[in-house]
Amino acid sequence: MRILGIDPGTGICGFGVIEGRHAIDYGVISTPPRTPLPDRLEDIYNSLHEIIQQNHPDVISIEKLFFKQNITTGISVAEARGICLLVAKQSHLPIYEYSPNQIKSAICGYGMAHKPQIQEMVRIHLGLKTVPKPDDAADALAAAIVHSLIGRPDLAQV
Amino acid sequence: MRILGIDPGTGICGFGVIEGRHAIDYGVISTPPRTPLPDRLEDIYNSLHEIIQQNHPDVISIEKLFFKQNITTGISVAEARGICLLVAKQSHLPIYEYSPNQIKSAICGYGMAHKPQIQEMVRIHLGLKTVPKPDDAADALAAAIVHSLIGRPDLAQV
Repeated sequence: MRILGIDPGTGICGFGVIEGRHAIDYGVISTPPRTPLPDRLEDIYNSLHEIIQQNHPDVISIEKLFFKQNITTGISVAEARGICLLVAKQSHLPIYEYSPNQIKSAICGYGMAHKPQIQEMVRIHLGLKTVPKPDDAADALAAAIVHSLIGRPDLAQV
Repeated sequence: MRILGIDPGTGICGFGVIEGRHAIDYGVISTPPRTPLPDRLEDIYNSLHEIIQQNHPDVISIEKLFFKQNITTGISVAEARGICLLVAKQSHLPIYEYSPNQIKSAICGYGMAHKPQIQEMVRIHLGLKTVPKPDDAADALAAAIVHSLIGRPDLAQV
C-alpha cells in the first residue's frame, strides 16, 4: 500500500510518499513570503494533484488539527487542510487523520516525544542516511508511517 | 458591479449575488447531516464554480473569521473558507473580506447590531418583500452589500 502523508500549512505544506518501509518521494510545497493567500491555496491544490498523479498513492494520511498554540496560524492551517481534503476527494482517495499524540506514540512509543526523536525514528524506519529535511517533509513522512503502523485505520477516516 | 457574497460553512454555506441594489440570486449550499467532510468540501467547490458560471460576478466578498465562540466550528468554517478562496482564485476574481463589525456598521450604522436588524436592513436595501431566508443567505447578501457600500475596498483584499 502506498501512502501519501501531508503536513498542511499555507506557507509550507509538507508531503511524503512511502510504500512499506521505503520513502518514494518527499518534500514541501512552499510559496514566497507575502504571497496572497488565494495564490498559496491554488498552489497547494495544483501541486497536490501533481504529486498524486506522479506517485499514485492508495490513501492519504494527515495530522489532526489542534489549536493549542496559535489560533491565527490555526486558521491558515485549517484553510490548507480544507484544500487537502478536497484534493483527496477529487482523487477518489480515502483520507485518514491522526492526532499528534497518536503519531508520537506509534513512531516513538511515547506520546510526549520531541520533534528530533520523531525525526530520527522516521529516518531509521525508512532506512535513510540522514534525517529528511525540511521538518515539514519529515512530519508528513511521520503521518504516512503512522497510517502504515496503526491497526484500525477505519476509525480514523475523515 | 456584480458582487457575490459568501457566508462560509461546511454544513450550510450561504451565497448572495447583488448588482447595485438588486438581488440577482441567493440561497445556500447545504449537505445532509453526517455527510463526510471531504464530500461537503467538494460540494461547496463544485456549487461555487456553478454559481459563478451562472451569475458572472466581478468580485467576491466574504465575512472575516473570528474565533470568539466555538473553535471546533471555527476549524470547519476555515476549511470551507479555504475552498472559497481557491475557487475565487481559479475564477480570476478578487476576494475581499470584512469583519462582522464592519458589516454591522456599514449596514445598520451600528457595530453591535443584532441579526434581525441586519436582516431587515438587507431586505430594505434590496427592496425585497420579505427577509431573505435562510439566515446564511441573508448573511451572504449582507457581505455583498458591505462591499458595495465601503469606500476603500482595496484595503480589504485577501
